Amino acid sequence: MKKAVVLLSGGMDSAVTLFIAKRSGYKTNCLTFDYGQRHKKEILFAKHLAKAAKSQHITLKISLPWKKSALLDKNIKVPENRNISGKEKIPATYVPARNTIFLSFALSYAEAIGANAVFIGANAVDFSGYPDCRPEYYKIFNKLFKKATKLKGIKIVAPLLHKTKEEIVKLGKQLGVDFNLTWSCYKGGRKPCGVCDACRLRKKGLQAATS
Amino acid sequence: MKKAVVLLSGGMDSAVTLFIAKRSGYKTNCLTFDYGQRHKKEILFAKHLAKAAKSQHITLKISLPWKKSALLDKNIKVPENRNISGKEKIPATYVPARNTIFLSFALSYAEAIGANAVFIGANAVDFSGYPDCRPEYYKIFNKLFKKATKLKGIKIVAPLLHKTKEEIVKLGKQLGVDFNLTWSCYKGGRKPCGVCDACRLRKKGLQAATS
Repeated sequence: MKKAVVLLSGGMDSAVTLFIAKRSGYKTNCLTFDYGQRHKKEILFAKHLAKAAKSQHITLKISLPWKKSALLDKNIKVPENRNISGKEKIPATYVPARNTIFLSFALSYAEAIGANAVFIGANAVDFSGYPDCRPEYYKIFNKLFKKATKLKGIKIVAPLLHKTKEEIVKLGKQLGVDFNLTWSCYKGGRKPCGVCDACRLRKKGLQAATS
Repeated sequence: MKKAVVLLSGGMDSAVTLFIAKRSGYKTNCLTFDYGQRHKKEILFAKHLAKAAKSQHITLKISLPWKKSALLDKNIKVPENRNISGKEKIPATYVPARNTIFLSFALSYAEAIGANAVFIGANAVDFSGYPDCRPEYYKIFNKLFKKATKLKGIKIVAPLLHKTKEEIVKLGKQLGVDFNLTWSCYKGGRKPCGVCDACRLRKKGLQAATS
């Protein structure tokens, strides 16, 4: 059975991506990061999601002591009620090179277990404008994968890159994703704040998919 | 003053690279990894080197639980007395995607502190044939740097890529590197084993540079 590493944050997009990988016939090996994020509770959701998908799951603790992000530094405010067109200024929740770090570990894991794909739920339509969510970034990273390892033929699969949040939710429902097992809010409080980018994008998707 | 992040292992090549970065006018910020390596003692050497170079220094602990390398798994033997032409089969000391992971963290650090260069002591002449030490890998990674971050203009500098070990040692001596402050042996014992690739490449360089 072909194997994949799936980057699983615990949010909606990575949950749908996990189920896409499974439907595509992969034995899935999920990878989640405890990177000092404000919404650390997403890790617990990732665990439940991996279990629901009968997937292997590893959580890695990493440290980014230089912070420089509202997700890592509680002195920086999480922006509220922003324009979420993806065309605005990159917000303070951006974490320097986060996806590059995540994909690097995923590549290492994939090579070690002989997997031939790394799945990531990146999206460049309904997103916060992060540079490491854009198609041109993945195009080059796929080229890097070809040169970086001893085992050849590992590829990045980003199946949600060009989908709207509405399409992502609809696809997830078709695949049997339980969105109650996902967490989005950047603030990570007891209840979702409703005003951060992550909450608003989630709401946009769920509302559009049921209307 | 322009800033650089320098990947510092504690070995000869990264030590020389640190001093090259300093001579090039950079304020240097060293980054060392505690990644479960057999030769963990190199970290102590990295600390002394950073101090000797009056450089900032961070050591990050990361975990690669999938191992798949003689440097991470004591059940896998470190190859001895190999042909070190760099053209042989990639040896068991190869760590899946290690430089990709290190460079990703370095990129994050560089962006966070506003540095415009990441220095790495990779070498593709007197080396063990690792894929992530080859020029074509760095060429693509530099392209990735351009797309991966909010802060633009961060570049990878690998000044030793095309140098022989002899040239590296001679350059280091010119720059005032104290090679007694460096550690190479993969086995990390009390004394260098003398037969692993790292020991043999070190010896080759030191002998050639003094003959």
